Amino acid sequence: MAKFLTGTVTHLLIGGSRHTLQSSNVARVRVTFEGLEGDTHKGLTRRSDVRVPHYPRGTIVRNTRQVSILSEEELAEVAARLEIPRILPAWVGANLELRGIPNLTMLPPSTRIFFPDDAVLVVDAENMPCIGPGHAIQEHYPDVPELAQRFPKAAMHKRGVVGWVEREGYINDGDSVRVLLPPRVTYSY
Amino acid sequence: MAKFLTGTVTHLLIGGSRHTLQSSNVARVRVTFEGLEGDTHKGLTRRSDVRVPHYPRGTIVRNTRQVSILSEEELAEVAARLEIPRILPAWVGANLELRGIPNLTMLPPSTRIFFPDDAVLVVDAENMPCIGPGHAIQEHYPDVPELAQRFPKAAMHKRGVVGWVEREGYINDGDSVRVLLPPRVTYSY
Repeated sequence: MAKFLTGTVTHLLIGGSRHTLQSSNVARVRVTFEGLEGDTHKGLTRRSDVRVPHYPRGTIVRNTRQVSILSEEELAEVAARLEIPRILPAWVGANLELRGIPNLTMLPPSTRIFFPDDAVLVVDAENMPCIGPGHAIQEHYPDVPELAQRFPKAAMHKRGVVGWVEREGYINDGDSVRVLLPPRVTYSY
Repeated sequence: MAKFLTGTVTHLLIGGSRHTLQSSNVARVRVTFEGLEGDTHKGLTRRSDVRVPHYPRGTIVRNTRQVSILSEEELAEVAARLEIPRILPAWVGANLELRGIPNLTMLPPSTRIFFPDDAVLVVDAENMPCIGPGHAIQEHYPDVPELAQRFPKAAMHKRGVVGWVEREGYINDGDSVRVLLPPRVTYSY
């Protein structure tokens, strides 16, 4: 049946300026049904945007993008593809960076991430890379040509997932996490 | 990419007594982020039960089981397996019965169901059949032996899905619905 993977929180961040994307490292954060306390993307609902083209722009929908989760290993791969030393999760507005979960970006919807202090996150969807984070990375490497433009392709299927809070609690930097895959479903019609 | 299926609301019900399961047909219902107005299972959160064994019993978690959705065709198959004329969705505590969606119970998590009056539901998971609805069906066919006991096996992968509200609005009996499958994800590690 269901199966646990294990990983570690290597960065924990809140803030996520809508303009610069930049988020800030913290040691511990309270997690409520609204999201991460103090974070820009918290809220039970949000206004729909280009991420959900099946809604008229600006429709109030349940916020399934409360938390942005990245993989340390995938981020290193993206940096390697862009031929830069590294990409920090703080540069691209992430909330969590995890180590040890293979192919994190491909985790299916309804995957649960369990933290030791009760908090549980549910994966909603892959975060599709766009040029915004590319601009943020470019600022750290002004001499590398076309970083922003090259980011979406380099980060495809490596830009992590977004999700929402299923259970309240706390997340700490350095936490060990357990990841529960949903039952495998094959739909055909 | 994403793909729409189409179906029709053949029953719309609220109520769903926790004891008898029985729900009642209505012509139209208001849908909020809490669920269907007037329904037993509405709520932004719920206490965890045997359905989510990875939580200590009674933990407050986000309610992803606000709405119970059945397939008219699957319900007819279950009735045929049990050798009874029919099973009404009202007997088993359902909120919606749909016609025209093949293999409805196998719809993957994150499938969206769009209604004409704005409401959108998101599929969370297959509803695993247990003996409770079997007892409710048995009451309608007191002379058929062992109906309750035979229900869980007969209804396996045919008992519909549960889900939650992503967008507020209304649902009407007879509505045409559009069903949007999520991108197919294959996770391996």
